[in-house]
This record gives sequence, C-alpha cells and structure tokens, in this order.
Amino acid sequence: MANSSRTFLCMPVWWIFPFTGWFGKPTHPNYASSASSQYMREFLDEMQPGQIREHLRKFTRLPHLSGTEQNLKYAAQIQKEWQEFGLDSVELVPYDVLLSYPNVSQPNYIAIVDAQGHEVFNTSLAEPTPEGYEDVANIIPPYNAYSAKGQPEGDLVYVNYGRTEDFLELQRQLGINVTGKIVIVRYGKIFRGNKVKNAMLAGAKGLILFSDPADYSAKGVKAYPEGWNLPGGGVQRGNVMNLNGAGDSLTPGYPAKDYTYRSRPEDGVGLPRIPVHPIGYHDAFHLLKNMGGQSPPNHWIGAMNVSYRIGPGFTDDFKNQLVRMNIHTNNQVTRIYNVIGKIRGALEPDRYVILGGHRDAWVFGGIDPMSGAALVHETVRSAGKLLRKGWRPRRTIIFASWDAEEFGLLGSTEWAEDNAKVLQERAVAYINADSGIEGMYTLRVDCTPSLHTLVYDLTKQIASPEQDEEGVSLYESWHKKDNWTNDRDAPRISKLGSGSDFEAYFVRLGIAAGRARYTKNRKIERYINYPVYHTVYETFEVVERFYDPSFKRLRAVAQVRGGLVFQLADSEIIPLDANQYAVSLEKYARNIEQIAKMHPKEMQIYEVSFDSLFSAVHNFTVAARDFHERLRNVNRADPLQVRAMNDQLMYLERAFIDPLGLPGRPFYRHVVFAPSSHNKYAGESFPGIYDSLFDIKYSADQEKAWNEVRRQISIAAFTVNAAAMTLTAPA
Amino acid sequence: MANSSRTFLCMPVWWIFPFTGWFGKPTHPNYASSASSQYMREFLDEMQPGQIREHLRKFTRLPHLSGTEQNLKYAAQIQKEWQEFGLDSVELVPYDVLLSYPNVSQPNYIAIVDAQGHEVFNTSLAEPTPEGYEDVANIIPPYNAYSAKGQPEGDLVYVNYGRTEDFLELQRQLGINVTGKIVIVRYGKIFRGNKVKNAMLAGAKGLILFSDPADYSAKGVKAYPEGWNLPGGGVQRGNVMNLNGAGDSLTPGYPAKDYTYRSRPEDGVGLPRIPVHPIGYHDAFHLLKNMGGQSPPNHWIGAMNVSYRIGPGFTDDFKNQLVRMNIHTNNQVTRIYNVIGKIRGALEPDRYVILGGHRDAWVFGGIDPMSGAALVHETVRSAGKLLRKGWRPRRTIIFASWDAEEFGLLGSTEWAEDNAKVLQERAVAYINADSGIEGMYTLRVDCTPSLHTLVYDLTKQIASPEQDEEGVSLYESWHKKDNWTNDRDAPRISKLGSGSDFEAYFVRLGIAAGRARYTKNRKIERYINYPVYHTVYETFEVVERFYDPSFKRLRAVAQVRGGLVFQLADSEIIPLDANQYAVSLEKYARNIEQIAKMHPKEMQIYEVSFDSLFSAVHNFTVAARDFHERLRNVNRADPLQVRAMNDQLMYLERAFIDPLGLPGRPFYRHVVFAPSSHNKYAGESFPGIYDSLFDIKYSADQEKAWNEVRRQISIAAFTVNAAAMTLTAPA
Repeated sequence: MANSSRTFLCMPVWWIFPFTGWFGKPTHPNYASSASSQYMREFLDEMQPGQIREHLRKFTRLPHLSGTEQNLKYAAQIQKEWQEFGLDSVELVPYDVLLSYPNVSQPNYIAIVDAQGHEVFNTSLAEPTPEGYEDVANIIPPYNAYSAKGQPEGDLVYVNYGRTEDFLELQRQLGINVTGKIVIVRYGKIFRGNKVKNAMLAGAKGLILFSDPADYSAKGVKAYPEGWNLPGGGVQRGNVMNLNGAGDSLTPGYPAKDYTYRSRPEDGVGLPRIPVHPIGYHDAFHLLKNMGGQSPPNHWIGAMNVSYRIGPGFTDDFKNQLVRMNIHTNNQVTRIYNVIGKIRGALEPDRYVILGGHRDAWVFGGIDPMSGAALVHETVRSAGKLLRKGWRPRRTIIFASWDAEEFGLLGSTEWAEDNAKVLQERAVAYINADSGIEGMYTLRVDCTPSLHTLVYDLTKQIASPEQDEEGVSLYESWHKKDNWTNDRDAPRISKLGSGSDFEAYFVRLGIAAGRARYTKNRKIERYINYPVYHTVYETFEVVERFYDPSFKRLRAVAQVRGGLVFQLADSEIIPLDANQYAVSLEKYARNIEQIAKMHPKEMQIYEVSFDSLFSAVHNFTVAARDFHERLRNVNRADPLQVRAMNDQLMYLERAFIDPLGLPGRPFYRHVVFAPSSHNKYAGESFPGIYDSLFDIKYSADQEKAWNEVRRQISIAAFTVNAAAMTLTAPA
Repeated sequence: MANSSRTFLCMPVWWIFPFTGWFGKPTHPNYASSASSQYMREFLDEMQPGQIREHLRKFTRLPHLSGTEQNLKYAAQIQKEWQEFGLDSVELVPYDVLLSYPNVSQPNYIAIVDAQGHEVFNTSLAEPTPEGYEDVANIIPPYNAYSAKGQPEGDLVYVNYGRTEDFLELQRQLGINVTGKIVIVRYGKIFRGNKVKNAMLAGAKGLILFSDPADYSAKGVKAYPEGWNLPGGGVQRGNVMNLNGAGDSLTPGYPAKDYTYRSRPEDGVGLPRIPVHPIGYHDAFHLLKNMGGQSPPNHWIGAMNVSYRIGPGFTDDFKNQLVRMNIHTNNQVTRIYNVIGKIRGALEPDRYVILGGHRDAWVFGGIDPMSGAALVHETVRSAGKLLRKGWRPRRTIIFASWDAEEFGLLGSTEWAEDNAKVLQERAVAYINADSGIEGMYTLRVDCTPSLHTLVYDLTKQIASPEQDEEGVSLYESWHKKDNWTNDRDAPRISKLGSGSDFEAYFVRLGIAAGRARYTKNRKIERYINYPVYHTVYETFEVVERFYDPSFKRLRAVAQVRGGLVFQLADSEIIPLDANQYAVSLEKYARNIEQIAKMHPKEMQIYEVSFDSLFSAVHNFTVAARDFHERLRNVNRADPLQVRAMNDQLMYLERAFIDPLGLPGRPFYRHVVFAPSSHNKYAGESFPGIYDSLFDIKYSADQEKAWNEVRRQISIAAFTVNAAAMTLTAPA
C-alpha cells in the first residue's frame, strides 16, 4: 500500500494540478519573486510519502530514550545523513541535564496490602510486548519521570482528572480532605504535571495516574494491534515536572554546560515531592473495584465496570486493605545531544528560520516524535536537492533534532538558553516538528497570529492528502472539516500552548512560532491525544496500518511545515502579518473583559477598567495597518529599506516579551500567550490578567487581589502599546 | 574675557591647525568617508564658547526644580529653540512620577532640645542667598528628597562617612550600637542613598548628613562668592533613594503613564523609612561641638574645630540635651517633561545614537546640570547648521533633555522603560550630558571599553582648551595630566558607575555608553564632586568666574560629547572596538580572582575556580580579533554585509545583559558593569561575583555563600561566552 502510494506521488503534484489552477495565487502582500515561488513548488513536490515511510521505519526499530546509547546513535546517524543530504554544517551539541530513570534492580509498582502488610495485589511491571518486538532490549517500563522516591501507604481517594476544579469539587462539594491519602486520578484533559501539583497542594502523599478507556478508546475501534485503541495493559509514560519553562531543573535560566553551576538536587526547579506512578486500565480496575465512600458525580464516571466511588479507602469488606506505592526512580545528571544543521543564507545569513523537533522517545516513538522527525528528515533531504540545483535561501535555515523533550523540553530549552542572545537578535521564526499525526481527519495548526495569513496561503498551494479529495486543496479540505465558526469563515487555527519544543522560543524569547499536524475530528472524537500515546504500542506499524497507510497525510504535514520554513527563509519580505495580530488582540481583550465582568460589583468598587487595554489594541491596530501600507510602498531596490521593514516584522513577536516575566513564572515572558497555569498543554491569552482574575475567588484580601488585576491590565496595555510603537516608522 | 575668547574661536580651529598637522590621522579601522570627516570638522568647529556661555546664562536665571512651572517653561523653550535650530522633530514627553518636596507651611530643621523639651538650637531653614539673586522666588530650602516624615528625638552618634566599613568599625571595633539613635555622618566618598540604607540597617531612627570642610573645600580657595569653596551656610541637597535602577518608585519596570498601575505609597521601591536631613558645616559645628563618648579613629576626623567624638549623645555638661529632627517632607505624584528631539538618519533611520542629559536642577543648576545642558544645546545648534548645508547623518540622532534626574534618574529611566523594545533593537550608543565641568585640570571620561579607541582618536582631533597649550591636542594634554599608569600608557578612562542618566541605557538595556567632563586633579584634590555641589551657590557666576572663564573647557567637552555622537551616527562602520572589550574583560577577571584568592583555603574546600571565566575571556578575545579581521575585509559595496557587521557591533554591549538581573537588583542586568552595592557612584566590574565575595565575610553558612560565588562565576563565564558568540560569523 505504501509502495503504490509512493509510485503515484513520484509525479510532481504541480504537474497534475497546474499552478494556475486550484492552487490559486498567493494572496499575501509580502510574497517573493517568481524564482523563489518556482523553487518552493519544487521543494514541496520533492517530498515523497515513500521517503517519509523509510525515514520513519529506520528510526523506530529500537527504543531511543533520552540519555541512552541508542538515542546518541540515532543522533550520529541523523548528523551523517543531513551532511549527505547537503547541509552546510551539522553538529552534535551536548548538554548535561537532570534526567530520571527507574531503578533497574528495584522495579516500581503499586500494591494492595492486607492487614498483615502482605501485598495481595501488585500492578504489572511492564506492558505486554507488541508482536515483532519480543527480542528488543531496553524497553523502559512505564513510569513517571522525576517522581519522588518513596513507599507511601494509605487509603485511596479518586479525584476524577485531578484538575483544579476536581480538587475544589472534592473539597467543597464532597467535603473530602486528601491530606495523607494516596490520590488516584485518570489521565486526560490536562498535563499530568498539573495533576501532580494539584495533588501536592491538596496534601496527598502519593499519586496514581491511570488511563481510563473512556478517555483512551475510540468507539468501534479495536485495541492495538487489531486497531489503534489502547489495550488494557498499555500505560502512558510521562514526566511530572512543573518546570514552567525553566529547562534543566538544576540550571534554570542558563545552559547546562560542563562548567555551569548546578543547584543541589533538593533545590531543583519543578520536582515533585511525592511519589507518582502510572498504570493501565487493567490494573486500575483492581485498585478501583472495591473502592468505598461516596458515589461520584456523573462526570467523574469513566468507562470501566466499577462504581468510581471516591473513597477514602475501600468498602467495608476490604476496609483493612491499604494501597502501597513502591517507587525507586532516580534522578541523575546525564548527557544529551541535539543535532543542529544549517543552510547558510545567501543574502542575510544573520537571519534565522528554525525547524526543530525532538528525537528522543519513551520507547519506539512511532508517532511521538518520529512521525515528526521523519518529516524534518524529508524536509532536509528536499532542501538538499534544491541546494544542488543552485538554490540558496535568502536567510539561514536551522534544522534541529532535539533531545530530552520528554523530560521537560530540555534539549530545545538548553539550546535556546545557550543561544538566547543571537536568537533574540536574529531569529525570524520557529516552526515546531513534534508528532506529525494524531488522527485521520484533517489539519490542525496552532500558531502565532502573525502566521495566520501565511498558513492559509500556503495550504492553498498544497493538495489534500485524502483519497476522496483529488483536486482539492488542503485549505479547502481543512476549511470544510473544521471551520472557525464563531470567529470567522476560515479553517480553525488555535493558540499555542506548550508541551512541545517551541515553548522556549515562543513564550520565553518571543520568536514567531507555529506547529502543524494531522488530527482527529474534535467534534466527535473526545479521547485525548491518541490512545496509544507514550506506550510501547507507539510503533511504526500503528502509523503504517492505521494512521496513514499511504503516508500522504504525513507528506501534507511535511509540506505545511517545510513550506512555512521555505517562505519565511526565502521571501524578500518576511511573510508575517501584523494585521492578523491586531485582530487576535482585539478578540482576546474582549474575552478577558468578559471574564472580569462576571464580577460587576467588584469592578466598580475597585475601579477596574479595560479601557487602557482597548485603547492599546486600537493603537496597535492603527500601527499595523499603517505599517503594511508603508510596506506596500517600500523601495525594493533599496536593501536597507527592505531590511529595516523586515526587522520590524521580525521583532514584532519580541515586542510582547516582558523581561520581568509573569508573576511567579519568570521564564514565561510573553504577555499575550502563555501555557495555562492549570493545564500546560493549553494556551492562555493575556495570561497575567487571566491568572489574577482566577485568584480573585481564592483571595482573602479582595482589594489586594483586584489591585493585582489592575496591575496586570496595565502591564498588558503597556506591552501592546510598546508593540504598536515597534511597528511605526522608526524616525 | 568671554567675549575675547569668543572672537578668537570664531576662526575655525582646522584653519589654525591644518588637518594634517597635530590632529593626526584617525587610527580607528572603522572610520568613515572623507566627506563625513570634513563634516565632522565643521561640526566641531561650529561649537563656540560664546554660544555656550549664552546658553548657560539663559537657562540658569531661575530655579527650575523638577515638577515646577519654571522647569516646564525651560522645557518649552528648549523645544522651541531646537526646532529653530533645525531638528526634524522635537516633542515634550510627560510622565507622572513620585517626587518629594518640603512642606511649605512646616519647614524642616533639626533642633537641640533641653530636658524640658525646649528647642535651644535650631538649624537654619535656608542658605544665605547669593548676591544678585535676592529677589528670586522658589528657591527650595535644603532637604533630602524622599526622606520619611517624622520627629525622632534621641542621642546622636557620629559615624564618619556612613559607609559599610564605617558602620562595621563602629559596631565591631568601637562596640557601639545605633539602634534607636540618630546618626550623623558627613557627606562624601559614597552616594548619600547608600548612607541612608546603612543607617537603616544598623537600626538608626534618623540620619543627619553634613558637609565637612575637609571634604568640601580646596586648599587656598575662598568660599563662594570670593572663591569656589563651600561656605558654612551652604547645604548639599539630594535624594536619598535606593532605587537600584527602578525609575519611578511606584511603577518599577514600567513607564509612569496616565493609565499605569501605581503601587501604594508604602510599597514604593527604595523609599527610606527614616527621616533624613542635610546641613552645612556652620550648623554641624553646633551639633557636634558638645558630643561625648569615645574619641574617633584618626580617619574619622574632619576639618572643623570640634573633637569628632562619636557619642552616643553629648558630654556630661549637656547630657540632658537631645537632638530632634523635624521633617515634614511630602511625596507626591507629579508631572515631569522630557524634551526629545530627533534628526532622522539618511540611510539607517532605524539606528539610534542618543545624546541625553538632564535639565532639572536643585536650584539654578549652574554646574549641575546646565553646564551640560548648554553643551547639548550647542551641539544641536551646530548639527542644525550642518543640516542646512545638506548634511544628514547616516543614522538617527536623538537629543534628550531629561527631567527629574535629581529625584532618581526618573525622566531618563521612564523614557527608557517606555521605549525599551525599540531601544533594545535599534540603539547604537548613549552619550551622557550631565555637568560639563567639575574641576579645572583635565578631561575625565567614563565609558564602556568598546568606546575607548574612539575616545582616543577623537580627542586627538580636538584642541586642548588650556591657555598655555596652544597647538596641543586634548589627547596630549589629558595624557600628560592623567596617565593610566598601572594599565597602559594612555590617558585614564574609568568604568561607568551611576548617578546620572546613562544608567538605564547602560546597566539595564545594555547600550554602549559613555560620559565626558572636565575635572580636577584627582591626585591632589581630595574633595568630592565640587564644593558647591547641589547648593544655591551653583550659579552661572561660579562657572564664569572660576571654572571656565573662557568657556573653552566646556567647548572642549562639547566637542568630545558631540564628536562621539557624530562618529557613532555617521561612520559607515560603527566605531566600536570589540578588542578593547577583550582587554578590559581580561583585566577585570584577573582583579576579581585576586579578591577571591584572599581566601585560598575556602577556594580549595569549596572548589572555587575562575578557569571557566578565563576560558570565556579567551574565547571572547579570539572572537573579537577574528571579528575585526572580517570587518577589515567586508565588502563595503554590499549594504547588507555592512549592516550585518554593524548589527554585531551594536549588539555587543547587549550581549552582556542577563535578563534575570543581578541578585536582588532586577534592573541592574549588566553582568560586567553595575553600580557598586556600597556606593552607587562607583562602577563595579563583575558585580555579581564581587557582591557574592563580599557576602562571604558576613555569612553564617559558608558553603551556601561559596556556592553563590561559584554560581556567579558560572553566570559571568556563560555571559562572556555568549557575548563571544555574538561576534562570530552568523552562519
């Protein structure tokens, strides 16, 4: 199947759909010369499903956890192949960061113990190995990286997804205190590190994370290997840090080099203080089936055949039984390796466009991250072909294969710290390349507003990968399947949150950023990520058999990511759109005002007004409009004029960075976008204001709390005004 | 006299001393075209002593304290005249900042009270008015701005200059605790705000600052108006904040605009918590003459005819007497006005060179600041003349007349905060223009190392202003009088400290900065500043009669400041020298290692090594050398190549900024230079390391203290390495 698709796609797409046909003309005002356009067509068409398949096959044969020999071998192999593809330079860049591994001689597990202290039930020590991988060594058993060590024993309390609102409901509506208890929550809805933080704040002495079939099975789909659903023995690995963008826990703010000062381990940033362990639903069934205590609210009930009672502890029949966690995971400073490849820009070598994605995987990384890494590989190969034809991009392109993403975005963040100054001065944009696919429905794009126009223009020039959509552009297909209903008649584009390597580039350094992947149907598929996420069942086969047998979906994603990089690096005028930023700011300002208006009385008492913010957004809107007007009239023959306008475009995102950072989160410095404090995966707009409004409900000193809201509005207004200033004529 | 000198100088200097003569050829490799050189000659020669005299006369007739109507009038007049001189735009930029004024209905003074509580001696409420100014209204009485209100009563303790080491000597050697006492210290050696901080930390409930003749009189010089020494009734005003670069106390980090959130007054940054008041030596004599207690160490003895006993309190004869401070000073948010004028750059309007100095004065500001403001005025006039001849600088020049410098560098800092983003991206250099003269001996320059070469080259092209040095260059004259003995055979250039408006630009934003003035003979004149500093006796006449009767010294200073601006704005290649930065870094690294080596045992125990720092300095040295090698070979015909190299030069200073700031001083972010924690006026190199080493002596936890030293060395090494990286070829 893969083979036939490969043959089909050897014919260049532009040959089948002539350029003047459905591809349409670029609508963006900033576009480049026709020579550059022709090269872009060749660049996109060179990317081949069969090649992507081969790359994915090659790099998913063996487990390659960060810090292991195999992951270094893959790094060396990528280095070698990128050199062969024709990059100007490729180097391995090491850092020594705090990683976390299970103790090989003392496995982690959870037990039910009887009154005599005997373990009457133990959770499994490993996932059943998928067919074909029986002889593979070094499959790390399921664990939560950076868990505290310990063997806490106690009654279980079930707290749904472990969200802020779940713990509140538990304490306020249900009247249950978890101090000294072991909390069990299901995976899903939010980043697991936030669940750990919530459990610690509530006083729990241990936390068990389980995958409920309600959250990790699609209807009518069989469990792997018959289908792509999560089997009962499958367990989601994952780190449970609350780094808030700090990178390596022991060297916050600075790269973890050989000479770098390291905090004492107990002073590390974001390390959980309690044991945390993940289990699958077969094991969860045994822990939950005899739970006593109150019946759960309806929305706490999952899909297993148990009552989901809340506890604390078991029913009367089992009231002597306790749960014991046995966790022996070790933190240790370990060498990691990024691979950094470069194509030197022809005219502006000191302007950088970055395509980066991670290489390290919990096991094979069939989807996460190699379905993305394979696309970077194919992009490098295609760019190498162009280089041989005499093309060289206007600006420098940097390709990165990051290490230790799974341990808290470490490789990408350390490199960002190491290169902060030059990136701040020279980086035009960062395109992220994590998993290329998480569903079979349509495109998903999360990006900064200034990239919206480019994403739309570009996807009009890429073919839909769906079998039944011949002659249909990716844009049309995407638009039809996921219209941005409430806001505008266009395909939905979302805000960037976190959970992947763009974080340091976007939220700390203020570099325009975006990501794209193929996704599920958000309206009807309610499960989270994709069912086999971070399990041993993330194999090459799960992609080849189920997600993208033709590898055309992944090819389309490669074309989106690669096309963004190409346009950003090669267009004479950088294709960023300040007007779209204005549109988004207006929307976010209205949204955040709506939230505040839920407290009309307090807004009056404490004189809280959003006028300054709306006025700033107005100033920004005018400045953006005027900027693009000037841009249309720029003298293209004057390199300094073009460069100056491009600098304003490049620095637009940087203008939203507040060097003082968000309250309590010094490495989240973007005033308009940050990961939510309640779910790292989600993006929050005007996060400083949002968080201060959230705190209103829990503050004993209302005047102080509202003063903080006022302060945050003032900071947001100032920042938006400052951003407007960066767009005006420089003198 | 002024008239005759004016006539003399109407002849252009280059006509008297032909260009190829003693001026010498510029030795800097980065210099511009000969057209630009010719314009520079004209620009320098246009500056005239008589004009400077007139500007100074015009702007020193009336008191113009920050926040007063008169200071706004001068702002409007400057705006008007700069427009007439020919600037492209001139605007008033207001901010609303916390200022501090005496209460008009309740004067501040200090009293000696007897056992019945009667005030038996009161300090004077005003300085005797100088001749010719008897009818002038609005002379603010001497006070310390931002003093806390209060009427503390207690025994006096004399603590020399109130330095860290003085309080230590008091407590450790002399065994005196000042808790609950009123401390009296003499002005001098360090910034008065540091004295206040030290007194507060020691537990004092009030602080009296006096000017001792030992520190404010030159030998053989009469008191004003017969000479330029401080009269006994003269009192030094001055603010006593510890802002550490925060700008407006209520809006740290953000500009104080109408919509800006303001902290509650009690939460303001840097406000003293105790009353503080300044007196002259006539009043000080009365407070000190009956002091009891121990005899002082020799170096605590000043030049008054009193014993300088330490106290606490008076001798037995007066043991019932106490000292009472009556302080009613108010803080209030007040509007201030900067004047911002611009000349748009011809080729790179988005590159800024700034010449800024303050306008607000404690009274007339004869020296501080108008002897500097007059030079800015003359520079603008001369630039306007050139503009009319068809010249336009390559880059944009910004002229600034700052407000509220005397209240904590407020006008300049608020504008820096307001424009932080564009300055960070576009500012090439900042030249400061505070007082042009503080002595009659030679030139004094404090600047970033990358400006050393330009300063030397430029001063070779300027004539010495000394009467007996016809045909001698300023460089030669300066070199002869103040050789940089220990370091090199060249005129001495010092590090920048603080105490003037360059602070936010240099220490917070990392913009290359420098200042120049005429100064005293540091080897034999030991008094501080100049004797009449911040008194009512800082008149036009003190300059005209004593400091610079021909106004040629001020003209030379104007030529240095203006010439720096001209070269930075008009040279094709920005005349900054990375090699000189390397030389200085090497020296600073050796110095700081020497300090650490005073603890050889601890360095071994705690494994403290400077290897990483020396290695970083080595990397920087190589990168700087290679950079200038590439610069020599740059293709001047390619505007993008030139621009890219210039960007590296512009961003060199920025590379030393750590966004996390120095420990406890978030707005001091320059890793190589910061004002000393012990004396704001002085510049400290590698301040993070220095402060951590200083803390060693006072820390109970030696391991923790030495870990902080190691951490600071690591940060310094990383920062210097990162700076080296900014100089390497960009791809």
